[in-house]
Amino acid sequence: MPELRKDPILKRWVIIATERASRPNDFKQKVQDQPGDVSKCPFCPGNEYMTPPEVLAYRNPGTIANGPGWWIRVINNKFPALKPEGDLDKKGIGIYDFMNGVGYHEVLIEGEDHFATPLTVTKELYMEIIWAYRDRIIELSKDQRIKYVIIFKNHGKDAGASLFHPHSQIIATPIIPSVIKNEIDNAKEYYDLRDRCIFCDIVTQERGHQDRIVFENNSFIAFCPFASAFPFETWIIPKKHYHRFEDIDKNHVVDLAETMKTVLSKIYLLLDNPPYNMMLHTAPPNSNSKEYFHWHIEIIPRLTKVAGFEWGTGTYINPMTPEMAAAELRKQQIQ
Amino acid sequence: MPELRKDPILKRWVIIATERASRPNDFKQKVQDQPGDVSKCPFCPGNEYMTPPEVLAYRNPGTIANGPGWWIRVINNKFPALKPEGDLDKKGIGIYDFMNGVGYHEVLIEGEDHFATPLTVTKELYMEIIWAYRDRIIELSKDQRIKYVIIFKNHGKDAGASLFHPHSQIIATPIIPSVIKNEIDNAKEYYDLRDRCIFCDIVTQERGHQDRIVFENNSFIAFCPFASAFPFETWIIPKKHYHRFEDIDKNHVVDLAETMKTVLSKIYLLLDNPPYNMMLHTAPPNSNSKEYFHWHIEIIPRLTKVAGFEWGTGTYINPMTPEMAAAELRKQQIQ
Repeated sequence: MPELRKDPILKRWVIIATERASRPNDFKQKVQDQPGDVSKCPFCPGNEYMTPPEVLAYRNPGTIANGPGWWIRVINNKFPALKPEGDLDKKGIGIYDFMNGVGYHEVLIEGEDHFATPLTVTKELYMEIIWAYRDRIIELSKDQRIKYVIIFKNHGKDAGASLFHPHSQIIATPIIPSVIKNEIDNAKEYYDLRDRCIFCDIVTQERGHQDRIVFENNSFIAFCPFASAFPFETWIIPKKHYHRFEDIDKNHVVDLAETMKTVLSKIYLLLDNPPYNMMLHTAPPNSNSKEYFHWHIEIIPRLTKVAGFEWGTGTYINPMTPEMAAAELRKQQIQ
Repeated sequence: MPELRKDPILKRWVIIATERASRPNDFKQKVQDQPGDVSKCPFCPGNEYMTPPEVLAYRNPGTIANGPGWWIRVINNKFPALKPEGDLDKKGIGIYDFMNGVGYHEVLIEGEDHFATPLTVTKELYMEIIWAYRDRIIELSKDQRIKYVIIFKNHGKDAGASLFHPHSQIIATPIIPSVIKNEIDNAKEYYDLRDRCIFCDIVTQERGHQDRIVFENNSFIAFCPFASAFPFETWIIPKKHYHRFEDIDKNHVVDLAETMKTVLSKIYLLLDNPPYNMMLHTAPPNSNSKEYFHWHIEIIPRLTKVAGFEWGTGTYINPMTPEMAAAELRKQQIQ
């Protein structure tokens, strides 16, 4: 029997219809991308001249900006969706609202290795990636025009990646995007009613029965959400209440690096290197959401097609229960 | 300079960033599907035994149900996302909401021709498709458990179609899906403030300057919305206020058939048979939205990738202005 489950944070229903497909093998959709020629990869060491200048790099002492010697490098996107120059120039056009596309669009190169996978990336490098995420959010939030900074990763062409070399993207927007606004508004409504954070309640409930837990350490749980819209959708969330990712401290960075490496390795091995998207949701820089927002990371392997029903309704059809997805991910040994 | 435009109905911002790509040719992404063997197509005449029994067919007098002689045939989906049997059995599981996946999932076969295109489908056959849409919405709405009926079409594998033979799908849900709920809630808010339908205001503004109009006849306009999330996104909407598609009369069916054939033919020719999704948004069967909801059809060619940024934020990056898309579609002659 198909099920309808409601996402308590986005308040949207998801259809779990397992009869349409049911084993992990039904979903395998290996990344088909060719690695290409490293001599032409703009993200490889030695090719720094091929990219816009770096805005941040963690590099060896004595090495020169925009040359080799780095292990993390952040650059402006060559084809930015938003640009920092100019005024917002907000205006109405009849019944419509308009503003200039002011903002930032950066690329974070996740290390020197063109061929890196979650198995080969060290916990230490994940820690550096996390510190760089934090540095960029703090830096970009200083621009008073910026209302939100989102960090995300597209892995594989089918997940929207155009370059093979491992990288994340950072976009800073002059508006609060609608999904974030929904999460905040609904979390506030829940808090106003119950005086509790909805994300904390989710952590408590998930830790209680363990059915959807993928991994847990001192500071984090990784779990497949009750109303997962996609097979093997996995969230990483701090067990304690923190609204802003960028307030993360050293101990939490260590634990987050372990969680990311573990979860991404399990997904990589179980699903044979699937395309995926990863998104970091933190509180907006200037919001009053300290009590009720709770930062988290969402990972979506891209194994199903989003078609007319999903676009037309916002209701997703997921052919796998999150309980089964979590059980498979839990079982997956990391080599 | 990139732009930010707000969709007044869904209240979500869209980024229009034309520097990332700008000519229709940049977007061409022809449907690659192979037509397959018609002798094995379950939707072809003579193969009716391959499908679940029909729930509606427009067929020649004297022909027998589930045999040839039809020109429109509606069947239950062989792999339904929702099923009519059983009770909803709504319940809370801790903080989560759950109900059984009760509903309907049907397939509407749009004529006998396996190879039909918008150029070969006659206006008369489009009229029959429209009448069948109407018949199914009215029929499925009689089930008191049903809160919404959506009709949609996936064309091409990249848009989610699994069979080549032209068909639409009908899903009846026991909940009002979130996108529809948003449209209704926001349209109501607008109406409460201004005592006017937001969709009617859009029709007036679009007809005023014509920049985004693709086609117009006595009863309908087709236009590329101000905050199009996708290149060549096109909406078809009645010029007069009607909240429910299923109240459509004969004259409007004629005009809608002409509009659908014209718009889909223009998209087919300009973009060289792209994959697309088409969604019909009508008012829910039992809603009080008569004054402020306004039915319409949304068509989305699937030419861009939806990736981490879009999933994470609900903000879409569209590399083409709707004004340019509409101008190209207007210019496109139909053979």
